[in-house]
Amino acid sequence: MPIRRILQRQDNTKVMLGRVEAIDRDAHTVHVSSGDLLIPYDYLVVATGARLSYFGHEEWDRFAPGLETIEDVLAIRHHILLAFEQAETSADPDERRRLLTFVLIGGGPTGVEMAGAIAELAKTELAMKFRRLHAARARIILIEAGPELLPAFPASLGKKARCSLQQLGVEVLTATPVEHCDGEGITAAGRRIAARTLIWTAGVAASDAARWLDVEPDRAGRVPVQPDLSLPSDPTVFVIGDTALVMGRDAKPVPGIAPPAKQEGAYVAKLLICRLTGKPPPPPFHYRHASNLATIGRKSAIVDFGWIRLSGLLAWLIWGGVHIFFLIGFRNRLIVALDWLWCYFTSERGARLITGSGDEL
Amino acid sequence: MPIRRILQRQDNTKVMLGRVEAIDRDAHTVHVSSGDLLIPYDYLVVATGARLSYFGHEEWDRFAPGLETIEDVLAIRHHILLAFEQAETSADPDERRRLLTFVLIGGGPTGVEMAGAIAELAKTELAMKFRRLHAARARIILIEAGPELLPAFPASLGKKARCSLQQLGVEVLTATPVEHCDGEGITAAGRRIAARTLIWTAGVAASDAARWLDVEPDRAGRVPVQPDLSLPSDPTVFVIGDTALVMGRDAKPVPGIAPPAKQEGAYVAKLLICRLTGKPPPPPFHYRHASNLATIGRKSAIVDFGWIRLSGLLAWLIWGGVHIFFLIGFRNRLIVALDWLWCYFTSERGARLITGSGDEL
Repeated sequence: MPIRRILQRQDNTKVMLGRVEAIDRDAHTVHVSSGDLLIPYDYLVVATGARLSYFGHEEWDRFAPGLETIEDVLAIRHHILLAFEQAETSADPDERRRLLTFVLIGGGPTGVEMAGAIAELAKTELAMKFRRLHAARARIILIEAGPELLPAFPASLGKKARCSLQQLGVEVLTATPVEHCDGEGITAAGRRIAARTLIWTAGVAASDAARWLDVEPDRAGRVPVQPDLSLPSDPTVFVIGDTALVMGRDAKPVPGIAPPAKQEGAYVAKLLICRLTGKPPPPPFHYRHASNLATIGRKSAIVDFGWIRLSGLLAWLIWGGVHIFFLIGFRNRLIVALDWLWCYFTSERGARLITGSGDEL
Repeated sequence: MPIRRILQRQDNTKVMLGRVEAIDRDAHTVHVSSGDLLIPYDYLVVATGARLSYFGHEEWDRFAPGLETIEDVLAIRHHILLAFEQAETSADPDERRRLLTFVLIGGGPTGVEMAGAIAELAKTELAMKFRRLHAARARIILIEAGPELLPAFPASLGKKARCSLQQLGVEVLTATPVEHCDGEGITAAGRRIAARTLIWTAGVAASDAARWLDVEPDRAGRVPVQPDLSLPSDPTVFVIGDTALVMGRDAKPVPGIAPPAKQEGAYVAKLLICRLTGKPPPPPFHYRHASNLATIGRKSAIVDFGWIRLSGLLAWLIWGGVHIFFLIGFRNRLIVALDWLWCYFTSERGARLITGSGDEL
């Protein structure tokens, strides 16, 4: 849902698409490159998010793309389907094995969900469609540097995710740091794995907000903020979301996911209204963690509400309901709900069209 | 709908994705580059279609992309939406005018439909969403080298299309051959038009089938075939669809659109069954032209069944019904029908998300 559409009826809001070049905190202006504009402000809220990070190995991005934009997702889908097509026609058994090996680097929710989805695709739907190929022989390997999957979840859920993935035929390698990626495969913990498809699901780094604001970021590039989410040095500038380092009550940073970002946005709005109307400010920001959710293949998921932990079909239904609830716009909710009901009752997914020019052939 | 899915339950068909390198008619083999395969045949049906053609100006493709693949369509949508966003922030009136000028080159059904769609987008939906910009001031220019729009339709329909487009605010320039395209705009009939967005809707050329088969193509690259759609020199090879030059009863080539291609496929299937079962061959192929259809903006279209010609709302309803009918798969029909009903009753289109990396900013 485009921001311009969401704010269409909000008359006191102007939407502009542009790239921030600099922020002048003395002059109270934001310099935007598109149209070479200087935008003045009384209060500034920076919510510029995070990008995919290869942690110093940015050269791996062409071998192991991530899932940031809609184009990335289409390109990876294209890549996966093309690998099966090429394996179908390949006469060389080693090459066929490499084409059918899919490696996901990073065992967080994205890696776990993606590994489950590829395994399900290979073992069920594609297995029916290819005549020569044994699509079910595809190897799906999920690699995590840490000791267990889903490091942000309680350990018991990481173990459940591992079990669910192994039942789907996914090979799970934990405590296995990746040392090298190239066009032929990866090296992880000294071991070489030949693979045509590598997918990066390992992590993100904050936007350049620290540079624009001329403050010292933390190791992940985030801007440290005060308990009211403003800069220590400047009460007119707030930083929220993935680009801010917000400390929770447990003295650990609030995680870089959607729920705290949304709560931070609502908090700053409330604080600004108080300040503009001369009311006393609200108490310091406190993140309320509602739940952890992840899905693994069809009809199975992991849900953790703190007071209750679920896995399996019930968890999957909750996962689906929550995701539909948080979509913006009735039309989007309706389309996704119909699509999922269709999948559920027919086991048939959307058209697996191989898009793109076919120049790779 | 992927071919592999359509033929999933047809046990005597194998689907292979590959690029044809050569056809050896003496050895009865097709050489496919992917997997370096030689595929033997008893009978060969070549249906490799056509590609976008710039008629000797292939260097224009980066300035004036066409609408061949799903990616092309997404890229052009991205380009159009970004032009509006950039016009919103641009301070230079000349640049703003250039950003809001959209030129379509080629007045066939694609150019007419696309011009109507962009005009509708600019004058209704986007006009509401932008605050600073007058999106309704966008110029949409449709350029055709011939004397009237829709050259394949009867002249009266071309005139109706022109009227409908002019009502939507589109500038229609006929008898205006394009002489030059570049990153800043076009030159047509000696006149310079500064435009950020150029879209090529002017024509196609046949695939390389003539080269593979070692026969002399016509000017558009098509392979001339006999009345039974086989090669004059080889009764085991058939060529159908956009890549074949099939003569109609009026001694004019059958047009390069879907209905004749489908009729040709059915004809060759019937002929091969006759040949394999020893029955007498069917009479020569004869194309039955059912109708011409095109849509212009919302709730208006042009329909020509030969015995009756319609335009306006009724034509639009017929256009929609026919397009849904010819979609493959119940799910696709359902989704498109729901989507159109939604548009019809709410005037709201799908999310105009600007996808892509934003590196152009």
